[in-house]
Amino acid sequence: MKNDLLRLALIQMKVSADKEENLKAAEDKIKMAAAAGAKIVALPEMFSCPYSNACFRDYAEGEDGETVKRLSAIARAQKIYLVGGTIPELDGDRVYNTSFIFGKNGELIGKHRKVHLFDIDIEGGISFRESDTLTAGEEITVVETEFCKVGVAICYDVRFPEMMRIMALRGAKLIILPAAFNMTTGPVHWDLTMRARALDNQVYFAAVSPARDMEGPYQAYGNSLIVNPWGDFVAHTDESEGIIFGNIDLKKLEKIRNELPLLKHRREEIYKL
Amino acid sequence: MKNDLLRLALIQMKVSADKEENLKAAEDKIKMAAAAGAKIVALPEMFSCPYSNACFRDYAEGEDGETVKRLSAIARAQKIYLVGGTIPELDGDRVYNTSFIFGKNGELIGKHRKVHLFDIDIEGGISFRESDTLTAGEEITVVETEFCKVGVAICYDVRFPEMMRIMALRGAKLIILPAAFNMTTGPVHWDLTMRARALDNQVYFAAVSPARDMEGPYQAYGNSLIVNPWGDFVAHTDESEGIIFGNIDLKKLEKIRNELPLLKHRREEIYKL
Repeated sequence: MKNDLLRLALIQMKVSADKEENLKAAEDKIKMAAAAGAKIVALPEMFSCPYSNACFRDYAEGEDGETVKRLSAIARAQKIYLVGGTIPELDGDRVYNTSFIFGKNGELIGKHRKVHLFDIDIEGGISFRESDTLTAGEEITVVETEFCKVGVAICYDVRFPEMMRIMALRGAKLIILPAAFNMTTGPVHWDLTMRARALDNQVYFAAVSPARDMEGPYQAYGNSLIVNPWGDFVAHTDESEGIIFGNIDLKKLEKIRNELPLLKHRREEIYKL
Repeated sequence: MKNDLLRLALIQMKVSADKEENLKAAEDKIKMAAAAGAKIVALPEMFSCPYSNACFRDYAEGEDGETVKRLSAIARAQKIYLVGGTIPELDGDRVYNTSFIFGKNGELIGKHRKVHLFDIDIEGGISFRESDTLTAGEEITVVETEFCKVGVAICYDVRFPEMMRIMALRGAKLIILPAAFNMTTGPVHWDLTMRARALDNQVYFAAVSPARDMEGPYQAYGNSLIVNPWGDFVAHTDESEGIIFGNIDLKKLEKIRNELPLLKHRREEIYKL
């Protein structure tokens, strides 16, 4: 069955303060990824807005805004599934950190609002309080594609194994995480956490970050990656701009799930999510 | 408060087919660990019985058996907490893979029966079916000590993040895992899984394996380790016999939990264990 195998592309792009420039860059790179055979393409967290509390409200748009229209149009034109990174989403008076997800005909097949806001304060390292400007989402998101179900979560959401497990239990075989880890936690926790989520849940796991910009207001860790259900890297990059590609092999996934049946061996009579 | 800091020792010992020899070796090494300042000492999975379905029933003993008496006596004599690795436990007609846990006065403060039986079959790698001879436990185990609550689980139990999370939610700040990973999954999954459990749950995590014996019926991976709540190694050994020591620093744990408040940021209205 040809739908057992697909090419995934992650776009690790630099994000400037110019929204139109960012959108145009995203469109160009999505075209390149599709031309190279990608069937699912993903953008990073806050791909068109500087990652800064000072910017989120100013850059925010509704579901009927220009960015959603443009992402829908490029998905349709390129006949790809598109996980549109995240943008600040304005809904009434509230701003969410939201990923809009599109099917091959440009239709909106789902959206995920970041459930866990990033409020941390590490001595000698990063401090950030998303909750100063953003509202948290209330839903776990799994969308249907012609290949498999795909879970979508955002950055800090990955820290919570319960949420990733629920996606797997709802049938996700691929989880895509637009993210922007920082230079405190990135080097120590990024690879470890992404690999563990893939291995524990026996899914393909892809995390896509902006490229690092030492001049910008926030230095993203970069290091976008794809991990297979055995915990091994399929693709991994450094901090610079680029597109990485990897094959999602659903037959391999089923083989791993048969040989090491972690999901079957769960003891639901002892713990339950 | 002096109870914020304690020395933990893990005994990575070779296991022979001679139960008395194994018990004697365990006692000697526990004495050495206590003499070196350890306040909690842990033995590996099946420390006195070859890890083989052919042996479990023959080597099994009840809670009133010789092994429990000897472990209790050595804990009392050395004034240490002892996580007594595991032994095959006979209860009625059933055999469990059980860890007996002792306080400083030799009192039994808990026991854990392995909840997830190890039944896997990897092409070109390990095949094992514990369920051919063993019965699964039904409880998650957290015991009280004068330092902190300590969770105890056994080997394959670690594959299930729900169980480790429940221990942390019940207050465990240290999790000790007698284990015997194999030469297929050990090299690829041992470090990754143990580090992820420590980091996600913001606990100290210690895994203690038998030393590798290429002549025995089962080649354990070894590589006993202690990981701190930031996901870093406190101690790590190779496959050979030895005792490893590490400090469990509960002030450091609290600092990490304050700076990166993962346990507080869980969204219990969205997922619940």
